[in-house]
Amino acid sequence: MSDSTLLTATEISGLIERRDVSALEVTDAALRRIALLEPLIHAWAWLDPDRARDQARRVDAGLAAGLDGPHLLRGVPVGVKDIFNTADMPTEMGSRIWAGFRPGNDARIVFNLRYDGAIIPGKTRTSEFAVHEPTDVRNPHQLTHAPGTSSAGSAAAVASGMVPLALGSQTAGSCIRPASYCGVFGFKPTFGTVPRTGVLKTADTLDTVAWFARSIDDVERLFEVVRVRGRNYPLVDANVVRRPLTEPIAIAVVRGPHWSDATPAAQRVLTDAADHLRASGRFAVDEIEIPEAAEIYDDHELIYCKALSYYFRGEQRNDRSKISGVLTGMLERGEVTTPEAYHRAVARQAELTRRLNEEFRYAAYLTLSASGEAPRGLQSPDLPDTCKIWTYLGMPALSIPAAAGPNGLPIGLQVVAPKYADYRLLDVGRAIVDALGVRAAIATPQEAGQKVSGHLA
Amino acid sequence: MSDSTLLTATEISGLIERRDVSALEVTDAALRRIALLEPLIHAWAWLDPDRARDQARRVDAGLAAGLDGPHLLRGVPVGVKDIFNTADMPTEMGSRIWAGFRPGNDARIVFNLRYDGAIIPGKTRTSEFAVHEPTDVRNPHQLTHAPGTSSAGSAAAVASGMVPLALGSQTAGSCIRPASYCGVFGFKPTFGTVPRTGVLKTADTLDTVAWFARSIDDVERLFEVVRVRGRNYPLVDANVVRRPLTEPIAIAVVRGPHWSDATPAAQRVLTDAADHLRASGRFAVDEIEIPEAAEIYDDHELIYCKALSYYFRGEQRNDRSKISGVLTGMLERGEVTTPEAYHRAVARQAELTRRLNEEFRYAAYLTLSASGEAPRGLQSPDLPDTCKIWTYLGMPALSIPAAAGPNGLPIGLQVVAPKYADYRLLDVGRAIVDALGVRAAIATPQEAGQKVSGHLA
Repeated sequence: MSDSTLLTATEISGLIERRDVSALEVTDAALRRIALLEPLIHAWAWLDPDRARDQARRVDAGLAAGLDGPHLLRGVPVGVKDIFNTADMPTEMGSRIWAGFRPGNDARIVFNLRYDGAIIPGKTRTSEFAVHEPTDVRNPHQLTHAPGTSSAGSAAAVASGMVPLALGSQTAGSCIRPASYCGVFGFKPTFGTVPRTGVLKTADTLDTVAWFARSIDDVERLFEVVRVRGRNYPLVDANVVRRPLTEPIAIAVVRGPHWSDATPAAQRVLTDAADHLRASGRFAVDEIEIPEAAEIYDDHELIYCKALSYYFRGEQRNDRSKISGVLTGMLERGEVTTPEAYHRAVARQAELTRRLNEEFRYAAYLTLSASGEAPRGLQSPDLPDTCKIWTYLGMPALSIPAAAGPNGLPIGLQVVAPKYADYRLLDVGRAIVDALGVRAAIATPQEAGQKVSGHLA
Repeated sequence: MSDSTLLTATEISGLIERRDVSALEVTDAALRRIALLEPLIHAWAWLDPDRARDQARRVDAGLAAGLDGPHLLRGVPVGVKDIFNTADMPTEMGSRIWAGFRPGNDARIVFNLRYDGAIIPGKTRTSEFAVHEPTDVRNPHQLTHAPGTSSAGSAAAVASGMVPLALGSQTAGSCIRPASYCGVFGFKPTFGTVPRTGVLKTADTLDTVAWFARSIDDVERLFEVVRVRGRNYPLVDANVVRRPLTEPIAIAVVRGPHWSDATPAAQRVLTDAADHLRASGRFAVDEIEIPEAAEIYDDHELIYCKALSYYFRGEQRNDRSKISGVLTGMLERGEVTTPEAYHRAVARQAELTRRLNEEFRYAAYLTLSASGEAPRGLQSPDLPDTCKIWTYLGMPALSIPAAAGPNGLPIGLQVVAPKYADYRLLDVGRAIVDALGVRAAIATPQEAGQKVSGHLA
């Protein structure tokens, strides 16, 4: 076993279930790579190597005892964004105000991951309260660039090969954007299909658990471990009995209201991909407009700011010096929004969500994940993109690492499906990955003194 | 169809699934009883009869279309404590500070209930942030007495026949105590088996969703609709394949550290019940002490106060005039507790939970639900009881309406099982109900100008 840090979670799991490698070996390899790269990347808010090894030893003991059948992520290291409760590590939410806070329990999905046998080496850095404030996390592809907010540490940890999977979240574009910037897969499932018990609350109708991975199979494995189940979720469960996609797969390109903000290189990634998919003969590619999209941005902003101002009023009044300008601005906008305007906005969100999901006529929409490569410098703001639209509408979204831009940094394509069609979305994603011949990039910064750079399909 | 308000949820569901009664008829009957009694009881923070009727009409339309198989709570009115998010009603959490707050979404379990077809007529009154501050809700059995904190409205709504089921919660004794005072069944499932997405957060390692019902079958139905499912919860699911209880059923009476605080009448309820169960020949009744129990009270208090001081620091500093003396005292105690002391306490909680669950040698423990009848007056504090012990240990607990005290008010018996033995606990509860011949009491206050008083097995 040379280096499991270059394998996908699915590959690691296969080796572990066959006893070809131990959970401890996998964990040690991850910890070595973290030790090597963390001084450059700054992906982690908290690391606990000893505890991770203990967890791995327990997993190995269970494997040796042969007590139960295969798990999906047994022995697989998974990074956890520092907005999810963990019983054995702090949960600081990227805020100095909450420094050292330990809620004492695991978020439900952390419980689910541990129960399945996943190893949690630590907590990844997040923008303050998972909003937009830049972090000091570096983009593994170029350390002079940011990985994108807010799930910065999780995106960078996966992109640098520290862990094959990491939890993030998305209230605006906090998963899809950094996935694009870092050249890995990002997945935001249908709103409401992943539990938020023990998760930071910022906006009830927008907050969505999301994650980063090196392959779509890995994305799906994590979904299987954490998603809700039961008779109340037939729409998700029905998709488990999958109908194969019939070709040509009908997709629609959506440029979105901020198309002109996208860089020419990014625009070309989307138009070239559309041409390529059309030419492959496996896809029927239309181009559509969503006229309602423009108004969604304003409503998204209104809802987000008002919800933040409800939940962070205490921080705003008592710890003004410890909150960022970005958040302060949003809290102030929220404060002057009337409750009535907020109620009208969430009512419009519910109505538009119902209608635009009903009117979804394609297997998927195809759009950009971000408006270009990661901007230079750690403090640069992100350009407007389409992420907020799909978050607002509760639709599942997948970012596929599609190309490299003129600066050598990744650019992602976003695939979107109607609510509860998560499994079909992943299948469409696989077909696109296959047709475009793209894959996630694992970056080892040259500054690490090595020239190793693994690429994984 | 005379009056469905005297039926259990299970009976109502049977009538509805057989089309013997419509959801609208059931809802109208509940709304009539609410209109009759609410001026006396004050159980509701918010009522929306029109919306409830709309929901009922949609359920009836679905039934008429015959689109899907039987549901468990289709057409059954369920009250929702005002700490659970609702998309279409305010969520004020018993606090003036949050007056008018509408998060815009449904808590996951509210979603689950609606998806199953339950009708939500409104939100029930809660103590401020589900802590201990008395409310102005009246005990349906005697309007001069309180129903108990904090799930006051839900307990009173079920006990007065307004709804057959109502959601509450328990962080200390907020469900079991009011269930006892109001003569209905109360159930707090194993910690972590019911989702808290969209629920007020007060103490991560203690907060537990709970509910009130008229029968154990009703308790179980609601558990079926809202509980977590999936491969990560085999311990709960394994119990679904039930082994019948073998008699004699081994139970242990636990008097608890505050036995001397219980009224003589309450003490007699427990000792008489133990004698009766023993004499029935169906139970083997031991009596045990839990030496660790005494220290649990201090740790529970420490954890609760510290967690509150983390989550309500904003309210404490900015809205002191709008928070109760009870909460202020707890916040101040929390503030002077060091984070390290809190971390040690939650670590002890985890360790003691593991150990005392492992050492659980009986089918169930039997103890008092409260230390006596509901005290006279709305402002009287509750006497210490054993509830906090089981909340702290994450064990499922069931309150059974067992007897009436010298003031004619109910006294409950509490049955407790080890974690994840929720279904076995309910079966033990049924055996106890059967052996003691007890049942929930539906009270119609004489002040309502009627002498109707239904009793249900």
